[in-house]
Amino acid sequence: MILFEFHQKVLFKHCDPAGIVFFPRYFEMINDCIEAFFDQGLNVPFHDLHREGALPTAQIQTQFPAPSRHGDQLIFQLQINRVGNSSATYTMTARCGNGGRLTCSATLVHIDADGRPEAWPDTIRWKLGSFMGEAA
Amino acid sequence: MILFEFHQKVLFKHCDPAGIVFFPRYFEMINDCIEAFFDQGLNVPFHDLHREGALPTAQIQTQFPAPSRHGDQLIFQLQINRVGNSSATYTMTARCGNGGRLTCSATLVHIDADGRPEAWPDTIRWKLGSFMGEAA
Amino acid sequence: MILFEFHQKVLFKHCDPAGIVFFPRYFEMINDCIEAFFDQGLNVPFHDLHREGALPTAQIQTQFPAPSRHGDQLIFQLQINRVGNSSATYTMTARCGNGGRLTCSATLVHIDADGRPEAWPDTIRWKLGSFMGEAA
Amino acid sequence: MILFEFHQKVLFKHCDPAGIVFFPRYFEMINDCIEAFFDQGLNVPFHDLHREGALPTAQIQTQFPAPSRHGDQLIFQLQINRVGNSSATYTMTARCGNGGRLTCSATLVHIDADGRPEAWPDTIRWKLGSFMGEAA
Repeated sequence: MILFEFHQKVLFKHCDPAGIVFFPRYFEMINDCIEAFFDQGLNVPFHDLHREGALPTAQIQTQFPAPSRHGDQLIFQLQINRVGNSSATYTMTARCGNGGRLTCSATLVHIDADGRPEAWPDTIRWKLGSFMGEAA
Repeated sequence: MILFEFHQKVLFKHCDPAGIVFFPRYFEMINDCIEAFFDQGLNVPFHDLHREGALPTAQIQTQFPAPSRHGDQLIFQLQINRVGNSSATYTMTARCGNGGRLTCSATLVHIDADGRPEAWPDTIRWKLGSFMGEAA
Repeated sequence: MILFEFHQKVLFKHCDPAGIVFFPRYFEMINDCIEAFFDQGLNVPFHDLHREGALPTAQIQTQFPAPSRHGDQLIFQLQINRVGNSSATYTMTARCGNGGRLTCSATLVHIDADGRPEAWPDTIRWKLGSFMGEAA
Repeated sequence: MILFEFHQKVLFKHCDPAGIVFFPRYFEMINDCIEAFFDQGLNVPFHDLHREGALPTAQIQTQFPAPSRHGDQLIFQLQINRVGNSSATYTMTARCGNGGRLTCSATLVHIDADGRPEAWPDTIRWKLGSFMGEAA
């Protein structure tokens, strides 16, 4: 099992008047992690993938065990749990040092330009498989 | 059981290059619905509530059965499922016409200025109770 | 001269750790005001306009004379200063009560699906003209 | 004269239905560049600076000579034009390869926790001075 790792410092723009990350901003970080995973982990640039299709999120379940503050150095780790014909389910965690900040599980669907599910190209399916681990 | 209803047109800023709502933007809409619920449903202005505390989201689980497009008129409905000592769990749905676009379940925690859970004031607890229904 | 007016309450999502509107969020409000202006002021739904073209901002100059806080009720006012062949220049202000919060001047360009400037349809040009006033 | 340089790839989250950067997202990039400049260029972590004050933008003037697309590698360059008692004016440009994408000029104001202008600490003023160049 290989984990994909993504680093994200908590920036001013992520934080709310309580001084902690505003939770919708975590979903932008999650999306950035997925984009970096396709770019660097799978060597499939996200902008190429989106030329003839898209990768919407069908469901996402997220826990935030502790808040993150401006300046925190977050480390995201991603693993693939299941690769379907046109979908993939992943688990992602984020921590700061030893402190857990986020755990999430979500399903992406590969769709064509008309919004219909489309089978993963074989090379992507094979690469996704190399990041598979046991479900958390 | 009373449902709180919130209307949100899908705006240009919500949409991605695939022409559909970028999923992190849904979480901004969800937060706007919660803010409107406190303002209008509970008559507790969100900015008052945040003067001496905050209301972070501890967990949120979301399904997106179909995409939303620029110009769609979304109707969000909120009900409270459980009111704890310093927390509340809600269910929210969004639809466009008869088409379901989002269902979510989440837990808010009422915290004080130091980030510690703080019991709901009695008036808020009582008002939250009036929006309680069966768990979806 | 007719002014187009747009109301926007300052929401939790707009505010930064200093408790004031994070300035990039003002530009989302400005864009929302333009979208509402096309929808309601010109009766040209923004999503229709974007089916075969787009309306990027070529330049924008903005002053923020005082900060806005969570809960402030902002009133935006828009007037058109100049309508070119495929462009339009507008002035926008936002205030809370009598207090000025934002003044801006910007130029929009109407482009086709290939990104080339495209002349305004006559009906839009005529309607834009009805919101023209003296440059501020 | 020293320029501070900041690299930002155009990500999916930055782009609109027309497939180009939605202009409010540029202002988030501009803010991220300023945050990186304080962190790395001045060695004054932005989260430290915000513990007892803030750095709002008083005015910002921006031109976008050409659109940016998903996947573009943007290079931002920053120089300081003027350092006042509690303010600083900067010029920023962004390009992709040889193509200009953004030029901006803006003024930051250093304020205390009550929102009043506060003189720059001497060390910050001195460091800001080292990034000064001629106004563009």
